[in-house]
Amino acid sequence: MPGNTFGHSFRITSWGESHGAAVGVVVDGVPAGLELSGADVQKELNRRRPGQSEVSTPRAESDTVEILSGVFEGITTGTPVSMLVRNRNADPGAYDYIRNIPRPGHADLFYTEKYGVRDHRGGGRSSGRETIGRVAGGAIAKKLLMGFGIEVFAHVIELGGVKAGPVTFGDIRSNVERTAVRCADPEAAERMLRQVRLAREEGDSIGGIVEVIATGVPAGIGEPVFGKLDADIAGALMSIGAVKGVEIGAGFECAHMKGSQMNDAFVLEDGQIVPESNNAGGITGGLSTGLPIICRAAVKPTPSISKPQRSVDMAAMEEVDIEIHGRHDPAIPPRMVPVAEAMLALVLADHMIRSGRINPDHIRK
Amino acid sequence: MPGNTFGHSFRITSWGESHGAAVGVVVDGVPAGLELSGADVQKELNRRRPGQSEVSTPRAESDTVEILSGVFEGITTGTPVSMLVRNRNADPGAYDYIRNIPRPGHADLFYTEKYGVRDHRGGGRSSGRETIGRVAGGAIAKKLLMGFGIEVFAHVIELGGVKAGPVTFGDIRSNVERTAVRCADPEAAERMLRQVRLAREEGDSIGGIVEVIATGVPAGIGEPVFGKLDADIAGALMSIGAVKGVEIGAGFECAHMKGSQMNDAFVLEDGQIVPESNNAGGITGGLSTGLPIICRAAVKPTPSISKPQRSVDMAAMEEVDIEIHGRHDPAIPPRMVPVAEAMLALVLADHMIRSGRINPDHIRK
Amino acid sequence: MPGNTFGHSFRITSWGESHGAAVGVVVDGVPAGLELSGADVQKELNRRRPGQSEVSTPRAESDTVEILSGVFEGITTGTPVSMLVRNRNADPGAYDYIRNIPRPGHADLFYTEKYGVRDHRGGGRSSGRETIGRVAGGAIAKKLLMGFGIEVFAHVIELGGVKAGPVTFGDIRSNVERTAVRCADPEAAERMLRQVRLAREEGDSIGGIVEVIATGVPAGIGEPVFGKLDADIAGALMSIGAVKGVEIGAGFECAHMKGSQMNDAFVLEDGQIVPESNNAGGITGGLSTGLPIICRAAVKPTPSISKPQRSVDMAAMEEVDIEIHGRHDPAIPPRMVPVAEAMLALVLADHMIRSGRINPDHIRK
Amino acid sequence: MPGNTFGHSFRITSWGESHGAAVGVVVDGVPAGLELSGADVQKELNRRRPGQSEVSTPRAESDTVEILSGVFEGITTGTPVSMLVRNRNADPGAYDYIRNIPRPGHADLFYTEKYGVRDHRGGGRSSGRETIGRVAGGAIAKKLLMGFGIEVFAHVIELGGVKAGPVTFGDIRSNVERTAVRCADPEAAERMLRQVRLAREEGDSIGGIVEVIATGVPAGIGEPVFGKLDADIAGALMSIGAVKGVEIGAGFECAHMKGSQMNDAFVLEDGQIVPESNNAGGITGGLSTGLPIICRAAVKPTPSISKPQRSVDMAAMEEVDIEIHGRHDPAIPPRMVPVAEAMLALVLADHMIRSGRINPDHIRK
Repeated sequence: MPGNTFGHSFRITSWGESHGAAVGVVVDGVPAGLELSGADVQKELNRRRPGQSEVSTPRAESDTVEILSGVFEGITTGTPVSMLVRNRNADPGAYDYIRNIPRPGHADLFYTEKYGVRDHRGGGRSSGRETIGRVAGGAIAKKLLMGFGIEVFAHVIELGGVKAGPVTFGDIRSNVERTAVRCADPEAAERMLRQVRLAREEGDSIGGIVEVIATGVPAGIGEPVFGKLDADIAGALMSIGAVKGVEIGAGFECAHMKGSQMNDAFVLEDGQIVPESNNAGGITGGLSTGLPIICRAAVKPTPSISKPQRSVDMAAMEEVDIEIHGRHDPAIPPRMVPVAEAMLALVLADHMIRSGRINPDHIRK
Repeated sequence: MPGNTFGHSFRITSWGESHGAAVGVVVDGVPAGLELSGADVQKELNRRRPGQSEVSTPRAESDTVEILSGVFEGITTGTPVSMLVRNRNADPGAYDYIRNIPRPGHADLFYTEKYGVRDHRGGGRSSGRETIGRVAGGAIAKKLLMGFGIEVFAHVIELGGVKAGPVTFGDIRSNVERTAVRCADPEAAERMLRQVRLAREEGDSIGGIVEVIATGVPAGIGEPVFGKLDADIAGALMSIGAVKGVEIGAGFECAHMKGSQMNDAFVLEDGQIVPESNNAGGITGGLSTGLPIICRAAVKPTPSISKPQRSVDMAAMEEVDIEIHGRHDPAIPPRMVPVAEAMLALVLADHMIRSGRINPDHIRK
Repeated sequence: MPGNTFGHSFRITSWGESHGAAVGVVVDGVPAGLELSGADVQKELNRRRPGQSEVSTPRAESDTVEILSGVFEGITTGTPVSMLVRNRNADPGAYDYIRNIPRPGHADLFYTEKYGVRDHRGGGRSSGRETIGRVAGGAIAKKLLMGFGIEVFAHVIELGGVKAGPVTFGDIRSNVERTAVRCADPEAAERMLRQVRLAREEGDSIGGIVEVIATGVPAGIGEPVFGKLDADIAGALMSIGAVKGVEIGAGFECAHMKGSQMNDAFVLEDGQIVPESNNAGGITGGLSTGLPIICRAAVKPTPSISKPQRSVDMAAMEEVDIEIHGRHDPAIPPRMVPVAEAMLALVLADHMIRSGRINPDHIRK
Repeated sequence: MPGNTFGHSFRITSWGESHGAAVGVVVDGVPAGLELSGADVQKELNRRRPGQSEVSTPRAESDTVEILSGVFEGITTGTPVSMLVRNRNADPGAYDYIRNIPRPGHADLFYTEKYGVRDHRGGGRSSGRETIGRVAGGAIAKKLLMGFGIEVFAHVIELGGVKAGPVTFGDIRSNVERTAVRCADPEAAERMLRQVRLAREEGDSIGGIVEVIATGVPAGIGEPVFGKLDADIAGALMSIGAVKGVEIGAGFECAHMKGSQMNDAFVLEDGQIVPESNNAGGITGGLSTGLPIICRAAVKPTPSISKPQRSVDMAAMEEVDIEIHGRHDPAIPPRMVPVAEAMLALVLADHMIRSGRINPDHIRK
């Protein structure tokens, strides 16, 4: 069973290669009645787009989205929404030198092991360009969720060893788009940027951590025991290229805690029973608790670096050195922010419908 | 869409509550031709069974499995394998006091939010007893994989703040079942055990980290872009109760690394192109690399503690203190070892079939 | 991907062989809040049970169901409902003579082609005994639907060449269980019964047609374009052993009709727009129309006959004659009535939830 | 759960409305290594295309397909194949008169019941134009199957009451594209054509029966008990608009047969055990028998007719008469031939992979 479809009741099918004709996505399960325009999607794609700042690849792509179906007179109709982004600045010849030489840290060799053939241009399907489908689908999920009081946002909390200081949700909302590194702590952002520059000068790259948050999720969302909300979020975030770890709430820190510290006690608040603290990160037993969902993804350093690395020429079957001078970001986390938001939004839209909180046929039903 | 089925080509459907008549699992997609007996499954269930040592609950359950279908004359037939374990030592009356009082750190309140009703006895479906289905299904996956040279094993690498020292795969295989805490480093195991005792004396509990490993997985397994092997593993491990974080290979450590450190260079070995190091943890771009798969799950401290905690009586709608004196483990990681192995084995069996490495109809085809 | 799970939001997983330890089913997606007892399920199983009359096999099975999970204090909890029926009157030795000789009209040879091995006793998994899981799951679906005003019932409209005369829904409800052949036209039922007796005397068997009806289905249920309601019904009915054709409404008759005859015009009735006629059989464009759903399944004659038939001994690889003297029904349609009802009910429960008409978490939400 | 995806291991996701920007399909699960060009797909689309003869709508569409992904240097790469057909001859204004008046026999009213809104132009998503996605996806399935010796073809065997005489597979292959009605019996084709003309003159339409055949399918394909090959075929064919009945092999005729007539005896042929006759239509017990798969779909008369019909104006809520003068075919079966072939090919490609007969990663593995 192939793997290019994500979700059940709200579901995206993604397609496209980095230097093929186009990339795109089909979103099935969008309830009818949602106002939707290309601008809603373009706004998110622009955040993901390359060439926005010194932290991202200089590949010049406008990434203009075209909505091909599922919207009539500005409103979704319940039928699939198909979206397309043409690849404009493709430069396939630039990749001839890696046709036979798998790049360390990339999937090149393993695509060849699996499929026998591969589109080597810019990594083909394994390129970060694949995330356009995620972001476009996620844009619809975000708009849908917004109508039900759910907001999803992300920020970079660590980059190249620099950790952001504590920030409020308000800080994140107002600051994150102000810096090239998408960190809500302006002072840390400055230091992160220096790390990015340093890495580029060294022909190297750096890793970091992205935190993704959802507010307004009602309690009781999720499907025990395998379709738990945190299980689906973990799978969603780990499916993003370069992510090597995922945690929710206290996360790995919980390994050092005692039950009496970790447990979120229950209190009465305005006649509602709510957890007093949020070590759970908004999810317990696989179900949302009503508090904000807080999760983090560890992102490895960009595998494409210009420093010489050892590899093997698959045609000649001999060891070689490779320097990667293509267009690439020295750090992935800043551009991963909209992608991580998209994945969390997709999971939440799916589960809101699956648990009957959003009607699958029409948002007003 | 409900959530009690896991996997695609090799698929389990789990059912059962802690104090209902029984718990069990249906395994669909087991290829025909596999020798299978109750003993194969019992062996794994015995490792998960309570009452084995001072680190686990004293609930006395033999957890005897009965295979009800799918096996004929000692061989699987390709039809579903249904397995059943009766609940014997159920003591439902012992849970009357939590009928209306949700336990902090447990799913009680959120099951009520979702379903309106809940079986409160021992946590009902959200009990750790649910993992019997996982372990029974995983036992078949493990046996199937073993025939294709794949071995799955796990160990506790951190408990109550005590970290295990470095161990070899050989150490893990030979040592892990020798200690009650399932740590392969005997010296650390001793200190971990002291932490367990201390926690019990304090009426508290401790968390830890379980590492799961698979050797012998061929390169090229996984389904980009959403069915990536690491995405499925992350979802699988996060679906286990009490897990709050998952990482693969270098995991969260990669956030502090540079590309030149993180990337696994390629070298020629016996005419094969292989990664020289394994920071990737055996998976790159969502595909197996041919090196051992190494992943870790962060496990929170057992939420059931006898120290008083604040909660709310849902009937009286007033805040109360609750002390939990039921039967429970002061630390979950040791008993999670066979569960984590089961989940990794289930993912691998599924993907081995999905990618055509194991024939879905008969293992010898 | 294996095939023992049916449905999406309301979903059954069936397991068990004719002469294994038991047969059963796991029903996932039953909303919480439904009153459910073993008697609700037993009632339907008793209608399917063998040995009830001269038209069915004399195999003596009480087919007593045990509900193992998902129900607490008489109410469903939203967790999977697992049900089990032990095989009591198994007589495996009676099948030794067909271990190597595939029975014409049965799946024996093709199970061997697919799986390499097979449980030959009574057809193993391909036995009609497999339908116990369908009927048990369908019993829950029927009870769920009943609470939303939907009723499902079936009757035999043709058997051994005898066609039933026109009957009303009222006739079906009151008459169908009064005759051994489950035909609502008493006079035709008498003639059908004579055909059954004649066939048995000749050592032969007869086919027929079962009609299944659902009343009370609201308009707009179904999921274009592949999850159309009629597509799912066709797949559901065709998945029952011995069914060779399925039609909805005018069915094959429509091939001879003109558009002006076939189209159901729209009229106003009590302020509602409704079709004036029901040639569509309650489904147009894959969506329910609000009128009764009417579908029919063509059922082949029982393949097990005592007349000599040609087959091949797979061990000796030589042609042989085979006479089948096991316990079997001379006509399948009467006992298929509850099975066909179950399958239609399963499809409708699934689609009622999928389209948001029944809340997936709790029936009263 | 929405319904625009079909298949499991070989899977299409279809999208698009009749008068939107485009229609298309994403095909996931195409094994790598298949030679594929736009011409392979265009060939099949041209057979489905309108405006080819007097039996089809005069809407002028070239239906030119663009392959956007999944093919590199003329070979499939294992990644999703996305295909797009722009709508050129859309004439949306021509449908203003049906914005509020549901057409009898069409899904208009029921889309409104389900989704609240609908794209009324030419039926929107419920238009026959949706089948472009099926045919494009089916073209890849057919090419894939052809490499494994499986051929799929269809013909019209009844139209407007005229039945074709007996024809051989050879007749079908050579004759079916020679007549506008796609009937392999030239004499009957002539009479069918007269029925088409007569219907058009009367402002009416006629129904018919399409037979679909697959040769070369190996024995043992299919997934008991719900994923039976015939169950999936029945669902696939019934999902095509206008189909009201499906049968396999003897089909509804089996209702009048005896077991001794219906059963296909087994004989030895070249050392293989094979059925001597093919009343089963190539499928028994849900598994392929090795003989040709033969199935038939009953197709209702085109619902769009120019004769006045009764309907209701949904805005004014008053009964009105409606005459449909848009572009439409007086008979659907001839153009359904490539669509039915596509659906059968999709089911077979899916099951060939699911049962391990075609490797999911690469066709040569």
